[in-house]
Amino acid sequence: MAYHIVVLPGDGIGPDVTRAAVQVLEHALKGQSVEIVMSEHLIGGKALDTYGVPLPDVTLEALHKADAVLLGAVGGPKWDVGPGHLRPEAGLLALRKTLGVYANMRPVKAFSELLDASPLRREIAQRVDLLIVRELTGGAYFGKRERGSDAHGMQFAYDTMFYSENEIRRVLITAFDAARLRRKKLTSVDKANVLDSSRLWREIVQDVSSHYPDVEVEHQLVDSCAMNLVTHPQSFDVLVTENLFGDILSDEAAVLTGSIGMLPSASLGQGIGLYEPIHGSAPDIAGKGIANPLGAILSVALLLRYSLHVDDAATRVEQAVAKAIAHGARTKDLARGQDDVVTTDQMTERVLAH
Amino acid sequence: MAYHIVVLPGDGIGPDVTRAAVQVLEHALKGQSVEIVMSEHLIGGKALDTYGVPLPDVTLEALHKADAVLLGAVGGPKWDVGPGHLRPEAGLLALRKTLGVYANMRPVKAFSELLDASPLRREIAQRVDLLIVRELTGGAYFGKRERGSDAHGMQFAYDTMFYSENEIRRVLITAFDAARLRRKKLTSVDKANVLDSSRLWREIVQDVSSHYPDVEVEHQLVDSCAMNLVTHPQSFDVLVTENLFGDILSDEAAVLTGSIGMLPSASLGQGIGLYEPIHGSAPDIAGKGIANPLGAILSVALLLRYSLHVDDAATRVEQAVAKAIAHGARTKDLARGQDDVVTTDQMTERVLAH
Ligand SMILES: CC(C)[C@H](C(=O)O)[C@@H](O)C(=O)O
Ligand SMILES: CC(C)[C@H](C(=O)O)[C@@H](O)C(=O)O
Repeated sequence: MAYHIVVLPGDGIGPDVTRAAVQVLEHALKGQSVEIVMSEHLIGGKALDTYGVPLPDVTLEALHKADAVLLGAVGGPKWDVGPGHLRPEAGLLALRKTLGVYANMRPVKAFSELLDASPLRREIAQRVDLLIVRELTGGAYFGKRERGSDAHGMQFAYDTMFYSENEIRRVLITAFDAARLRRKKLTSVDKANVLDSSRLWREIVQDVSSHYPDVEVEHQLVDSCAMNLVTHPQSFDVLVTENLFGDILSDEAAVLTGSIGMLPSASLGQGIGLYEPIHGSAPDIAGKGIANPLGAILSVALLLRYSLHVDDAATRVEQAVAKAIAHGARTKDLARGQDDVVTTDQMTERVLAH
Repeated sequence: MAYHIVVLPGDGIGPDVTRAAVQVLEHALKGQSVEIVMSEHLIGGKALDTYGVPLPDVTLEALHKADAVLLGAVGGPKWDVGPGHLRPEAGLLALRKTLGVYANMRPVKAFSELLDASPLRREIAQRVDLLIVRELTGGAYFGKRERGSDAHGMQFAYDTMFYSENEIRRVLITAFDAARLRRKKLTSVDKANVLDSSRLWREIVQDVSSHYPDVEVEHQLVDSCAMNLVTHPQSFDVLVTENLFGDILSDEAAVLTGSIGMLPSASLGQGIGLYEPIHGSAPDIAGKGIANPLGAILSVALLLRYSLHVDDAATRVEQAVAKAIAHGARTKDLARGQDDVVTTDQMTERVLAH
């Protein structure tokens, strides 16, 4: 039986990096007993242009028989004008909700060859090795929101950070399980000194932690955490937090190593996995053949591991990327000083060669 | 007529640094025509211990005739157990709301002598010179919140990020005015690709900006901004954002220069100003005489400038602090390698001497 992979290149550099990722995926499965069937569909701005909605029915239908989804990126200035539900990002949010991928896993690890691109001092940057687990289908992203005017014509708007006990519990279980496979330390981040949703979050952490006596648990307030990520990133192993805090902190963490273009993510939940690089759609360099495909390629490694269960193939992809970097391949975003710059295709060939 | 200053030392190192700040305030006004009357009151954990509430009536009454408030810090593990409204932080939030201080101003500037304590590469850290204007009396901090259980006994909790047009407009005016007095660049930070409150925020920015054609305006999403603060902090002049984003981003920005213990803040609004260092209550070093008083002392400079309108006295305090640092005075948090460490009192004396 073949696995169905839905490929959603999306907007901007999405198609550039997804093309590279698909090549690596096919190559990695050569000689494996695992078979895949791929189909490509529209999402985001391109879907808006064609169907008038960011997540069209044809795409939704394809998702029904999918085992995994490989996504590029969505969004761009062209579509930044519409109302909230008619923006590319709404397609991505609906996709996450439809797939039920409540746990977004973002590993951040330094590549020693790339540390010169880090804004941090080398001795701090080189020790970064953390995993952010971001809750992805709750909180202010999906709570009730409204815009309106009061009796005096004064406009107002609100968004609701809503969490239920089970939404919190399930993502914590994913995070605790992940911590067990790593250095057994979990930092839960909230704003429990102000927010009710954070106080509930913290109580559920206490509760779930009783089932993981081997995992050391620490609570940090989101403002302190934003400091500690810069001053002591090496003190984090697994960091788990709610959706909006996770959005902010994972982007902050992503730049610490100087190689955001290399970072993959896996969103897991009720079966189907969603895999995407964490970088955005970078419309300014779209279609120029210069985007860094390694974030998408490393997302393929996660897809191989978590959805296709071929851990050895996943590891080989990761090693091929590490070797390409070690042998000096640098896309524009990674290049410093005298470095030779390679294109998206050339970088992909180097990875395939290894 | 004398200005009334209410001094609220608060918890942890709050009393240590406030004592220093009051000495400097008195010294700075010697020979000035400005007279002050000070009275000290309880807030936070200490108020909970004495009165059972974090912002007692006696303190509130004192605020009625206050022209300015000098605050130390609130909070500590001892009081982290109560329900939300019986925590030290609730006293601080009620104080902000009572005073109507909707604009929290947090200048962050590198001291070249202290750059070794920055986690950033020196060439990045030394160029940091920004002002964060954080909305302080709206958003998720003050919106409706609730905890409860549904029909199946499943717990839930929510907080509401609510903003009205005028709450947004008034803080933007403060921020635009501040940008005019600086490098005339304003970065407004929101999450307009997801949140309704952010979309309203962005519209009001557009609107207000038409009255400030001389100020360059830029919009950043909060996740990108969390990255840019680390990678390109020098690209920011004035950064304005809503309450919760401001809480996170201002703490992130505060550590970039390596001297969070030195950073002051002024909260302005409808008349009375609230001045406090941005560091927390640091219960672990409370009462030991080793806390860095410079954040509180520089907050006094802001109080002199904004509430007492004695700009020359304010500048003299700032210069005295700069000289103390230049002559090598270092409290424990600032000391590196071979540095001589001074106590809170010694640091204060050095500042007074200059
Ligand atoms: C595009 C946007 C809606 C999205 C988010 O905020 O979740 C992105 O920033 C991300 O982190 O994947
Ligand atoms: C103590 C806490 C309530 C407060 C806040 O979140 O506003 C603090 O972090 C601050 O930034 O002044």
